[in-house]
Amino acid sequence: AVLLALVSWQATASDPIRVNGFVCKNPMEVNADDFFKAAALDKPRVTNKVGSNVTLINVMQIAGLNTLGISIARIDYAPLGQNPPHTHPRATEILTVLEGTLYVGFVTSNQPAPNRNKFLSKVLNKGDVFVFPVGLIHFQFNPNPHKPAVAIAALSSQNPGAITIANAVFGSDPQISDDVLAKAFQVEKNTIDWLQAQFWENNHN
Amino acid sequence: AVLLALVSWQATASDPIRVNGFVCKNPMEVNADDFFKAAALDKPRVTNKVGSNVTLINVMQIAGLNTLGISIARIDYAPLGQNPPHTHPRATEILTVLEGTLYVGFVTSNQPAPNRNKFLSKVLNKGDVFVFPVGLIHFQFNPNPHKPAVAIAALSSQNPGAITIANAVFGSDPQISDDVLAKAFQVEKNTIDWLQAQFWENNHN
Amino acid sequence: AVLLALVSWQATASDPIRVNGFVCKNPMEVNADDFFKAAALDKPRVTNKVGSNVTLINVMQIAGLNTLGISIARIDYAPLGQNPPHTHPRATEILTVLEGTLYVGFVTSNQPAPNRNKFLSKVLNKGDVFVFPVGLIHFQFNPNPHKPAVAIAALSSQNPGAITIANAVFGSDPQISDDVLAKAFQVEKNTIDWLQAQFWENNHN
Amino acid sequence: AVLLALVSWQATASDPIRVNGFVCKNPMEVNADDFFKAAALDKPRVTNKVGSNVTLINVMQIAGLNTLGISIARIDYAPLGQNPPHTHPRATEILTVLEGTLYVGFVTSNQPAPNRNKFLSKVLNKGDVFVFPVGLIHFQFNPNPHKPAVAIAALSSQNPGAITIANAVFGSDPQISDDVLAKAFQVEKNTIDWLQAQFWENNHN
Amino acid sequence: AVLLALVSWQATASDPIRVNGFVCKNPMEVNADDFFKAAALDKPRVTNKVGSNVTLINVMQIAGLNTLGISIARIDYAPLGQNPPHTHPRATEILTVLEGTLYVGFVTSNQPAPNRNKFLSKVLNKGDVFVFPVGLIHFQFNPNPHKPAVAIAALSSQNPGAITIANAVFGSDPQISDDVLAKAFQVEKNTIDWLQAQFWENNHN
Amino acid sequence: AVLLALVSWQATASDPIRVNGFVCKNPMEVNADDFFKAAALDKPRVTNKVGSNVTLINVMQIAGLNTLGISIARIDYAPLGQNPPHTHPRATEILTVLEGTLYVGFVTSNQPAPNRNKFLSKVLNKGDVFVFPVGLIHFQFNPNPHKPAVAIAALSSQNPGAITIANAVFGSDPQISDDVLAKAFQVEKNTIDWLQAQFWENNHN
Repeated sequence: AVLLALVSWQATASDPIRVNGFVCKNPMEVNADDFFKAAALDKPRVTNKVGSNVTLINVMQIAGLNTLGISIARIDYAPLGQNPPHTHPRATEILTVLEGTLYVGFVTSNQPAPNRNKFLSKVLNKGDVFVFPVGLIHFQFNPNPHKPAVAIAALSSQNPGAITIANAVFGSDPQISDDVLAKAFQVEKNTIDWLQAQFWENNHN
Repeated sequence: AVLLALVSWQATASDPIRVNGFVCKNPMEVNADDFFKAAALDKPRVTNKVGSNVTLINVMQIAGLNTLGISIARIDYAPLGQNPPHTHPRATEILTVLEGTLYVGFVTSNQPAPNRNKFLSKVLNKGDVFVFPVGLIHFQFNPNPHKPAVAIAALSSQNPGAITIANAVFGSDPQISDDVLAKAFQVEKNTIDWLQAQFWENNHN
Repeated sequence: AVLLALVSWQATASDPIRVNGFVCKNPMEVNADDFFKAAALDKPRVTNKVGSNVTLINVMQIAGLNTLGISIARIDYAPLGQNPPHTHPRATEILTVLEGTLYVGFVTSNQPAPNRNKFLSKVLNKGDVFVFPVGLIHFQFNPNPHKPAVAIAALSSQNPGAITIANAVFGSDPQISDDVLAKAFQVEKNTIDWLQAQFWENNHN
Repeated sequence: AVLLALVSWQATASDPIRVNGFVCKNPMEVNADDFFKAAALDKPRVTNKVGSNVTLINVMQIAGLNTLGISIARIDYAPLGQNPPHTHPRATEILTVLEGTLYVGFVTSNQPAPNRNKFLSKVLNKGDVFVFPVGLIHFQFNPNPHKPAVAIAALSSQNPGAITIANAVFGSDPQISDDVLAKAFQVEKNTIDWLQAQFWENNHN
Repeated sequence: AVLLALVSWQATASDPIRVNGFVCKNPMEVNADDFFKAAALDKPRVTNKVGSNVTLINVMQIAGLNTLGISIARIDYAPLGQNPPHTHPRATEILTVLEGTLYVGFVTSNQPAPNRNKFLSKVLNKGDVFVFPVGLIHFQFNPNPHKPAVAIAALSSQNPGAITIANAVFGSDPQISDDVLAKAFQVEKNTIDWLQAQFWENNHN
Repeated sequence: AVLLALVSWQATASDPIRVNGFVCKNPMEVNADDFFKAAALDKPRVTNKVGSNVTLINVMQIAGLNTLGISIARIDYAPLGQNPPHTHPRATEILTVLEGTLYVGFVTSNQPAPNRNKFLSKVLNKGDVFVFPVGLIHFQFNPNPHKPAVAIAALSSQNPGAITIANAVFGSDPQISDDVLAKAFQVEKNTIDWLQAQFWENNHN
């Protein structure tokens, strides 16, 4: 990208310049489209089984984002839909509500009591802003049974990652041993087996 | 904030804990409001003389953002308004258009020719996304003479800073020597004097 | 600490120097004990309900670790005990087995198929080394019904944090809405209620 | 370079090892010349139209600088010459005067009044040291009508970049719309057109 | 590795993806072994002439460690053996004693008196933990004439580097000028020559 | 400093704002002198016993350097003088020769043979530039028996630190055990005792 333009004359088609594993273009061929995506973030998305859809614009969509440490997403929520408990292993998130209402929250880490696993939550209306610190489990829920909600979120990495807790724990490939999970979640193994048999639909990458 | 909750029992009213110069709260008193701002980012703003208004939500508005490396802004553009050429000394910006149309661009640095000071520009419609790399001079312009435009932008710092080029060069306090500026900008001193006599209205911090 | 010794003559008892919120000592008073902890990492610990105990030596135990980006832990596993699925929001972990056998694994993030939520696991014997990348959900399980296991782990932060998934999701204070969790985990609300009624014992900070 | 010597036996002529886009040498072939440049920083340079010349020794001149976060420059100033207002998007600069006198300054960012766009300036004599914080607009001017001046500056990046304000704003390729610039700089379009018709000579990369 | 899995379909055998100079695998081929090493850290090592042996597991042994900022080592000490004065140019070290006793210490940098080159030392018993800050000269010595000692150490880099002072100063290839070293160490040149003629056996990389 | 000006109205004389342990000024009181030092880097210094003198301008001399990651130094060398083998634990150094000739070099770390402890050296003339990578042992020597030499060096930290090898090893306070050093340096204890009895004069902080 632009930041490395000085060296790219060394690149050839069979030996491209890469940074962070991504191909850099010859600077003479760099243009505004390398920093652009017709992402249609104004358009509603079809939500998944839990009632949400995250459209993330990261370095995979805009090559020029490489090394620049930021990405942006539109999140759609069906009525009573949620972006279920998840973490971003490499980013903090800041979110603003464009449409509707969201009940949001995150849980602090295993700190000494009385601060252990504190759940901080808030109802957000249109125009409100909320922050989810890096790596903490958080969710957003649309409490309105009739109307969808929409948010724009930004993340402090060009490749923030997302880990939906239920999917990663109960829907991994291959499955985690039900012995381990039964003890960890203090339930019977057949409850774990039942959970692992569900379809864990992804709502974002 | 939460990340330093373990140590904050050491703080007293007269000797608060600070990180990056910001006061951290006693973790037992931390609550969701420390990560929240009723920012009314859904509401139009009055634009300034050049036809824009940037409402930035950074660590000054949300104390919990401290150390987390991100902030968010709403930008309003009057018909034919612009967010004039500026830089963010400590952040990359990613922007999406909520309403209207924007003509945007940035200029690359003094690289060896033919890549010197290349101007990369793009017309953005609703839902499009564009990236302005850290420290580069960029602007957004609303080419529509009848309708306002609105964008949401995110920045990769909790305190990104903004430097409006014309304001910093011609509107500083005190003024930069007109001898210096006349030579730098290849104009007569009285042109500089005239520029320095204008009112350079700020549109964001 | 030592790295800032040059400035600490400015500190007084009522106005101590702090970095990252931690008090720095007058450098004339710094001694080896500021970099030392009689942590008894050679001694077995009593394990908790799920059969493990993490003894973490971080910046809270050794003030000299401040800003230095590393910590160390001993982990005890009862027979059939586990260090249940958890994340470290601010650290990668590297672990070696001192005694016994461990079945370990982590789950990748929500990447595009076929790499979505891949579960990578391994049986570790004494002397083996394994890495858990920053922010990913991971666990260790002692498959031996008769013998305990012991590991030493190191983390790439002086304050790595730990989030035990089950505790944060089902044992937070206050509880997360069972409406939200029932939908997120695809179970009945009374299953969530039952889970939230359990005692979620912490095994490490 | 040396820091990655361990892996370089994997490289071949057709598949060289690169870091940050720069080719690394086989460590058996690394020698002192990879950390050296006969830069002739003791020799005066011919200055440009505004009376300066920056000779920057960065990672393009010394491959061994890659990843090491520093570079150095000699700056020559003709009598009444200047290094015109510019920024370094990725570096702070520290400068010392070798010969002559310099009038230097920088402008702070758009902070809340009364700190908005403060201009901090100083006359530097031989042996004085001054700091220009990352990303801020700054310049140096030789006020002596008869004698040249010389400075050595160091920058906190192996690839700091430089953006000469007038060149990037009025001399970009292609030109920025004169509609946009006329409004941004509060001048008539024909003034912008006149400015854009000038030759904007670069004095450094 | 996993963190860059999204892009690796672009790689071919003749054009592999590299990050930091290390080859990344196709994510479909990534498995637990990429995060694993059968390092036998439970097994005693043969110690060298000064009575120690460092078995470091870094990114050369576990490719999955790349970019993750941590490594781990077992250190064996013969009776009266030592890990002689050395530095890690890119890492802080945290160490715990598994067997025996260690006398350890580090020396602070050239700070203003009375803190100049302070030697901080401690006798460590089994289970104790000690920290050696990044870049400072440190050593460990087994004071027991009859029994070996063993430690586990972790370092805050996937490629920390080690510089054994005596080896680098007196055993470099080629040798440093004895004129320089004689003056630096305030000894006769023939003492330097004698030192340079010794065999400087490495105990770790 | 300027970067934190937004928050400093919260400071009082008895509760100043600090960042990295350094006091920040009220931004209304910040002026150019906070970024300036009349360092007299053009003036020769008296050299010490080994024939050198390092005049470092770091954050202790210029408060505005805090967080900005750079510093600068003048180094004077007597005829046949040297800046003896040393490291900077937190910085890379780039150096240019102003007067005279320097024989300079550094030694690589304990890498696998044949790259172990390679000594890379070069004779530098006026105007030449050389780089010493972070943490590596390096020195500069003036081979001219009649003329002094002068260099300007820059370091990639506002507080780089310096560790003169001989001083830290043989001149620490208290002394390192001669048993340890005798074995480490393969000499008799009385040689160590003799070395420890010398006066180890510091030439820079």
